[in-house]
Amino acid sequence: MTSDSASFREERDTFGPINVPSDKLWGAQTQRSLQNFDIGGERERMPEPIIRAFGVLKKCAAKVNMEYGLDQSIGKAIMEAAEEVAEGKLNQHFPLVVWQTGSGTQSNMNANEVIANRAAEILGHKRGEKLVHPNDHVNKSQSSNDTFPTVMHIAAAMELNSRLIPSLKVLHAALDSKANEFKDIVKIGRTHTQDATPLTLGQEFSGYSTQVKYGIDRVLGTLPRMYQLAQGGTAVGTGLNTKKGFDVKIAAAVAEETKLPFVTAENKFEALAAHDAFVETSGALNTVGTSLMKIANDIRFLGSGPRCGLGELNLPENEPGSSIMPGKVNPTQCEALTMVCAQVIGNHVAITVGGSNGHFELNVFKPMMASNLLHSLRLLADASVSFEKNCVKGIQANKERISKLLYESLMLVTSLNPKIGYDNAAAVAKKAHKEGSTLKEAAMKLAVLTSEEFDSLVVPEKMIGPSD
Amino acid sequence: MTSDSASFREERDTFGPINVPSDKLWGAQTQRSLQNFDIGGERERMPEPIIRAFGVLKKCAAKVNMEYGLDQSIGKAIMEAAEEVAEGKLNQHFPLVVWQTGSGTQSNMNANEVIANRAAEILGHKRGEKLVHPNDHVNKSQSSNDTFPTVMHIAAAMELNSRLIPSLKVLHAALDSKANEFKDIVKIGRTHTQDATPLTLGQEFSGYSTQVKYGIDRVLGTLPRMYQLAQGGTAVGTGLNTKKGFDVKIAAAVAEETKLPFVTAENKFEALAAHDAFVETSGALNTVGTSLMKIANDIRFLGSGPRCGLGELNLPENEPGSSIMPGKVNPTQCEALTMVCAQVIGNHVAITVGGSNGHFELNVFKPMMASNLLHSLRLLADASVSFEKNCVKGIQANKERISKLLYESLMLVTSLNPKIGYDNAAAVAKKAHKEGSTLKEAAMKLAVLTSEEFDSLVVPEKMIGPSD
Amino acid sequence: MTSDSASFREERDTFGPINVPSDKLWGAQTQRSLQNFDIGGERERMPEPIIRAFGVLKKCAAKVNMEYGLDQSIGKAIMEAAEEVAEGKLNQHFPLVVWQTGSGTQSNMNANEVIANRAAEILGHKRGEKLVHPNDHVNKSQSSNDTFPTVMHIAAAMELNSRLIPSLKVLHAALDSKANEFKDIVKIGRTHTQDATPLTLGQEFSGYSTQVKYGIDRVLGTLPRMYQLAQGGTAVGTGLNTKKGFDVKIAAAVAEETKLPFVTAENKFEALAAHDAFVETSGALNTVGTSLMKIANDIRFLGSGPRCGLGELNLPENEPGSSIMPGKVNPTQCEALTMVCAQVIGNHVAITVGGSNGHFELNVFKPMMASNLLHSLRLLADASVSFEKNCVKGIQANKERISKLLYESLMLVTSLNPKIGYDNAAAVAKKAHKEGSTLKEAAMKLAVLTSEEFDSLVVPEKMIGPSD
Amino acid sequence: MTSDSASFREERDTFGPINVPSDKLWGAQTQRSLQNFDIGGERERMPEPIIRAFGVLKKCAAKVNMEYGLDQSIGKAIMEAAEEVAEGKLNQHFPLVVWQTGSGTQSNMNANEVIANRAAEILGHKRGEKLVHPNDHVNKSQSSNDTFPTVMHIAAAMELNSRLIPSLKVLHAALDSKANEFKDIVKIGRTHTQDATPLTLGQEFSGYSTQVKYGIDRVLGTLPRMYQLAQGGTAVGTGLNTKKGFDVKIAAAVAEETKLPFVTAENKFEALAAHDAFVETSGALNTVGTSLMKIANDIRFLGSGPRCGLGELNLPENEPGSSIMPGKVNPTQCEALTMVCAQVIGNHVAITVGGSNGHFELNVFKPMMASNLLHSLRLLADASVSFEKNCVKGIQANKERISKLLYESLMLVTSLNPKIGYDNAAAVAKKAHKEGSTLKEAAMKLAVLTSEEFDSLVVPEKMIGPSD
Repeated sequence: MTSDSASFREERDTFGPINVPSDKLWGAQTQRSLQNFDIGGERERMPEPIIRAFGVLKKCAAKVNMEYGLDQSIGKAIMEAAEEVAEGKLNQHFPLVVWQTGSGTQSNMNANEVIANRAAEILGHKRGEKLVHPNDHVNKSQSSNDTFPTVMHIAAAMELNSRLIPSLKVLHAALDSKANEFKDIVKIGRTHTQDATPLTLGQEFSGYSTQVKYGIDRVLGTLPRMYQLAQGGTAVGTGLNTKKGFDVKIAAAVAEETKLPFVTAENKFEALAAHDAFVETSGALNTVGTSLMKIANDIRFLGSGPRCGLGELNLPENEPGSSIMPGKVNPTQCEALTMVCAQVIGNHVAITVGGSNGHFELNVFKPMMASNLLHSLRLLADASVSFEKNCVKGIQANKERISKLLYESLMLVTSLNPKIGYDNAAAVAKKAHKEGSTLKEAAMKLAVLTSEEFDSLVVPEKMIGPSD
Repeated sequence: MTSDSASFREERDTFGPINVPSDKLWGAQTQRSLQNFDIGGERERMPEPIIRAFGVLKKCAAKVNMEYGLDQSIGKAIMEAAEEVAEGKLNQHFPLVVWQTGSGTQSNMNANEVIANRAAEILGHKRGEKLVHPNDHVNKSQSSNDTFPTVMHIAAAMELNSRLIPSLKVLHAALDSKANEFKDIVKIGRTHTQDATPLTLGQEFSGYSTQVKYGIDRVLGTLPRMYQLAQGGTAVGTGLNTKKGFDVKIAAAVAEETKLPFVTAENKFEALAAHDAFVETSGALNTVGTSLMKIANDIRFLGSGPRCGLGELNLPENEPGSSIMPGKVNPTQCEALTMVCAQVIGNHVAITVGGSNGHFELNVFKPMMASNLLHSLRLLADASVSFEKNCVKGIQANKERISKLLYESLMLVTSLNPKIGYDNAAAVAKKAHKEGSTLKEAAMKLAVLTSEEFDSLVVPEKMIGPSD
Repeated sequence: MTSDSASFREERDTFGPINVPSDKLWGAQTQRSLQNFDIGGERERMPEPIIRAFGVLKKCAAKVNMEYGLDQSIGKAIMEAAEEVAEGKLNQHFPLVVWQTGSGTQSNMNANEVIANRAAEILGHKRGEKLVHPNDHVNKSQSSNDTFPTVMHIAAAMELNSRLIPSLKVLHAALDSKANEFKDIVKIGRTHTQDATPLTLGQEFSGYSTQVKYGIDRVLGTLPRMYQLAQGGTAVGTGLNTKKGFDVKIAAAVAEETKLPFVTAENKFEALAAHDAFVETSGALNTVGTSLMKIANDIRFLGSGPRCGLGELNLPENEPGSSIMPGKVNPTQCEALTMVCAQVIGNHVAITVGGSNGHFELNVFKPMMASNLLHSLRLLADASVSFEKNCVKGIQANKERISKLLYESLMLVTSLNPKIGYDNAAAVAKKAHKEGSTLKEAAMKLAVLTSEEFDSLVVPEKMIGPSD
Repeated sequence: MTSDSASFREERDTFGPINVPSDKLWGAQTQRSLQNFDIGGERERMPEPIIRAFGVLKKCAAKVNMEYGLDQSIGKAIMEAAEEVAEGKLNQHFPLVVWQTGSGTQSNMNANEVIANRAAEILGHKRGEKLVHPNDHVNKSQSSNDTFPTVMHIAAAMELNSRLIPSLKVLHAALDSKANEFKDIVKIGRTHTQDATPLTLGQEFSGYSTQVKYGIDRVLGTLPRMYQLAQGGTAVGTGLNTKKGFDVKIAAAVAEETKLPFVTAENKFEALAAHDAFVETSGALNTVGTSLMKIANDIRFLGSGPRCGLGELNLPENEPGSSIMPGKVNPTQCEALTMVCAQVIGNHVAITVGGSNGHFELNVFKPMMASNLLHSLRLLADASVSFEKNCVKGIQANKERISKLLYESLMLVTSLNPKIGYDNAAAVAKKAHKEGSTLKEAAMKLAVLTSEEFDSLVVPEKMIGPSD
């Protein structure tokens, strides 16, 4: 987080002057935070979607503030500078880490300072001169206490819509397609990890596909509360220092800018003091993580082998598994995905702890909660796409193995009941189990029915649904 | 879990004979489970709502099975016996603990055995004679693998509707009523736990009220997936051994019996192999727990004192706090509630771990997941009612203290800006802070405005909303 | 929690008179708590080990108080009554639930009231007369704030020593014995769930055994801080209202009574305000839960089948798995154990949340933390014993299956490298994989070495350790 | 993660050729992983301590391998290249993310490839020529399955010793120093957040100091198992392809290199298949997180104000709190620290989930577990230092306020009991509470004792310990 440049300029805030790297747009308060919160290093920087959302918000704020009297040329310069932030062009000017003040004030000031200096430059002035003032102009009618929750919601909603939902849809489509592709492959079922009655491989995958489909529904179901913006609540939720209607106008501006149906929060006190919407959405991600853990686990076990596992699925081979042993395909995509799921489950607890610890008018676990939610959704999104592309899409059924296991299974004996009676059927199964033979071999030895009768009765294809 | 009686009768299953206490209705498989799973003692018994839901389900199953050919007299006796289970009359015949097979098979057999023996008695026969057969009659067209998830959903949906939602509504109404009662009491706001700009006590409570309102919405939002029943999937989800349409009919029967909109699950494979619906609903309870933790924490801090805390609220005194010190009212209801919230957060993790560990066609963490969800919702419901009745309803604003703190606060200095300018206002505040005086005293000493001017400008009532 | 009797007597505290069931020993404060905290029902009662620990503590307190001047006849009667509590004889007089005041004050008063009334009876007086006073005599030199953390530590330490450690030792011994029993059975290894180089089944079990051994070490490692008692800190940790030396004497008395090396806490402020010792011990249980989850999961997968799974282990059959299919042995003990582990993981989070939320001189999540730790350790202990007795002890190696899988495996090809070179060996493996044949068959077809050479080279027994 | 250069060279593995940026030292397998695991972006890269530990391990492995016959010139070049990795000089050549194969194989290969190419350069050869072979030379006698757990332990043990423990000691010393500095400042105690009997501010801080001291003990207590290295277990724990004694020698070499008492793991099967040591250590960090959350929470509440909070502490002001309101010092360091604690609690759950999900001979949640533990300890260490430097060290007692609250408190009335009796004392307290007066004023009005008597009896300094 050090500057590449050796030269500095002086910036100041109410605490006095402080040196800032000349090649950076930030100001005094950002610089102080950098020095006071040396926690975790560069990987702990405020996530990029938060930075971009600040760009969106500050642009909209300038626009609305111009309606309420902000100088037009300054307003337009702020909008232009903020647009650059929204596009990620000024990321290197946002050096602060998550582990700062719990209101995110310092990141709000970082945004104000960068945009003010950049807007001044746009207007032909120098950095640090405060022609455009970080507080009076860029932060006009705002407080960190309402801007930070607002950018949390903007960032999360944008990422959910543009990243997570599309990724889950990609994965859902692939699983659904496999369910269809495998719809006629009858296989042994497994309950308690033990052999059970048959089903089709397609039915098995339809369960996975349904899990992901519901996961999408679950995430979508949390959006209404994520679309509520705190902006206009200012310091404690009352809206002091704003004009009536400011809250509604700014939510409308953000909605227009993002093409997402943001509205002003119906209760600003809740919107500042609690972040239940984040706990709720994280709960949905936790459920998605739970689903994907189950699916990836199943797929790696069904693909286990090549000789000494279940071996029903052939997983695509993306990298060397073993230099000498063909067929040793490590289910690396399943492993990456299940690790992601464990992380999401853990992040959810962090978010929950943060959410439960707010006090009075302001929850001060905001950056941590934002960081974890954005982390979880990014990981789930990326891992879903990777899993789809590098694993699910290429899964092939090992039909021979599936068929072998199915017909070796003792569960099929239940089909003989109607013909030879429960006791005889049990005797056949016991003999086969004892001797390690097939059911048919045992049945032949016991001479309870003919080979043709056996073949006509033991038809797994008839065991995969209710009867007429 | 021992019998009160010294006498035993012999029951049998495919494992052979086993002694069962004469005064108990259960059979051989229940008895075996009792002996094989000596884990945790009586407090770990399967929760009552599950037992009752078994009664509901078995009654409906008999009804539908009669349509498909089950002997009418046996069917009716089963329905009668099952109704007794549904009403909780036979609870003492359900001794099994949660820590059994992960499919809940043993509790399903417990229900089958008790209902079979009770139905036999209704028909004038003896226990253990198997006139009514636990498997062939009571469990007809069913498997543990679909009955247990079905009773999980029935029990949860009934408890959510009859217990949790009404309790949260009671709490919401009380908070809302307080928000209204306190709407004109202006008080100091607190952000970062530090003095901030004012708001009304009613506004503060409106935040709490909104949290609970959204919590109700969150719980309700999970119900659509909770209303999906696995019944009809039998062993692996295919519905083997059922007739077409059985699944739809039984869901309809359960819906009629419970007056809740249950439907058959659209994908039975998902319904057996995963319990994402439980993880999802637990996520909603986790959010509610997070909200209530925040609210109860705020209330105990606002009520702290009587002399050396914030002291803005007087909490009702329900038990002796201190024998000699009047006014020492321990916020015991807040304490019970926050402990409940911590438990709910922990239970959620247990449910998540269970949900993520299903394998193949059957998740085998069912009883644990059911137990935790029912535990969480019961605790949240009871604690919400207790909190409402023994705390919220009786909260009184300590207006004198609130007013004193408000006027002592330095935050009000911001009102002087327009009149005397920022620099003079800051000087007033600094002087007051340094000397420990009121703002007014400081302003008088500095002679920057008159007493009348001060009083006309410093009006917290004008600081509690946006300006026109 | 209602009385069996219709008759009542009047008890009183500083709040005034209140009716208490005549057949119960408790007094006014217990009765108030019963009415004010109607949360969760009877299964939520304060765990029995806490009640018994109160018996131990109050007995010791009376003994030490007699040294400091407590009337000898009253003191002796208190000791006698407390001994009955310690022995669990008066459990039915402790009706309060966990969800009460977070200091456990009401359970402390419950103990004081029951012991006072019982001691009065022993001295020939009536209940409610307060010949022996709950506060002045039984609670002498004590505060709820130091007694409750003291009984938390006594209860946990006793249960850890008498229940958990012995149970884990039983499980460890069984796993160790299996490691020895299976030491010569060479089997295929599995990494990434895929076939890997061989090891012995004994080596595999030695990993499990080591996990449990370390688990015991981990739990033992937490005891030093669990042996520290808060008693003598009274209300805020200062020891106000005690005499110098009281704290040391009472810890010594408890140590003598329990035969455990309790000492007085070196810092009473920490001992009241934080329960880090519980969070720490719960962390050890969480690790044990993690270990047992892994072990039980492995065992159920290794025992999966009988035909379509891995099938390397035969698990004991304790109850009917399937009425018709022999060999379908559901790993029900593994299921109960893994459910317990999930619960322990969840309880740990609840304890952590409680531990992190203490304020000032008193953590008020005490009963919840105590309840969860005792719950976790009881479940782990009971489930370990059940798992050992009903599963581990009876596990048998399916040598035939193990051998078959081992020799079918392609991993053994690596043994051919030195003789025929890497390229030829790879060709053999590829051919075998492609054709589904054994390595030997492939090698014979490729004529790269003789049958005798193959047999002398491919010796898995030589692959299970480092070379000389 | 793209190259700065437009030029590429061809690298190959058993999968065939692949283009790698010319300016990077990595090879084919690293490149494949980059392309196959596009998850999370650059901030998700394998943590630097893992990279450095690979340097340490590979250096030691070359050293020991030279004893077993590795070519000396190649061995020395590897050692030199590995040393550069250990020093962090080649960090930019380690682009892989945590979300890869769960064994960390790809990062092991990354290390092998970088070191091989760098060693070749040292010997005057070109990258990609494989003069030094990643597998045959750098990874000699090793498997990813034992190297990755080994670097996990090396990295964690080094970071615990060099970063966390020293940081906690710094914090402990500061708290201890404050406990001493404040030892004579008597203040009101608070239990249930309510006024209670007095203690000294030093006593209060001694509780915090003790918490941190025990936290250090807890972390140290986990080191014995962290010092056990898996190296020598190779693929499944048997040590196949190593020579006898290799494991002991390499542990000794690592111990010498790091000056930490590493030893070879007594059971390599446990060391590969489970990472209980990480779950255990994370449990210790979780306890530390719990402690620090409590301490930071207390400090911000004790410092709340300046007028409307408790106001007993003055916290250092590090950045502008409010531009106009002097004394508004936001407890930003407390906020950063409590956010860190929430993260640590969440990370612990992720680690626990990963630890519980190992299968057979290999746990494949390794990179995730390593990443979370290193994350937690880095955050705790940095935040402890920041908290010490920017908050604790500068905390000042607001003696005036402390004294005012203490003497206003009604709890002091208990001192009057011996002189005027319980009933009179209670009357004094009630009157004071009712009238909002001091105890002394009330006592004077009631004329129960003289002013001098009052002053001689009400001496809080006598209430802060047991009596003689």
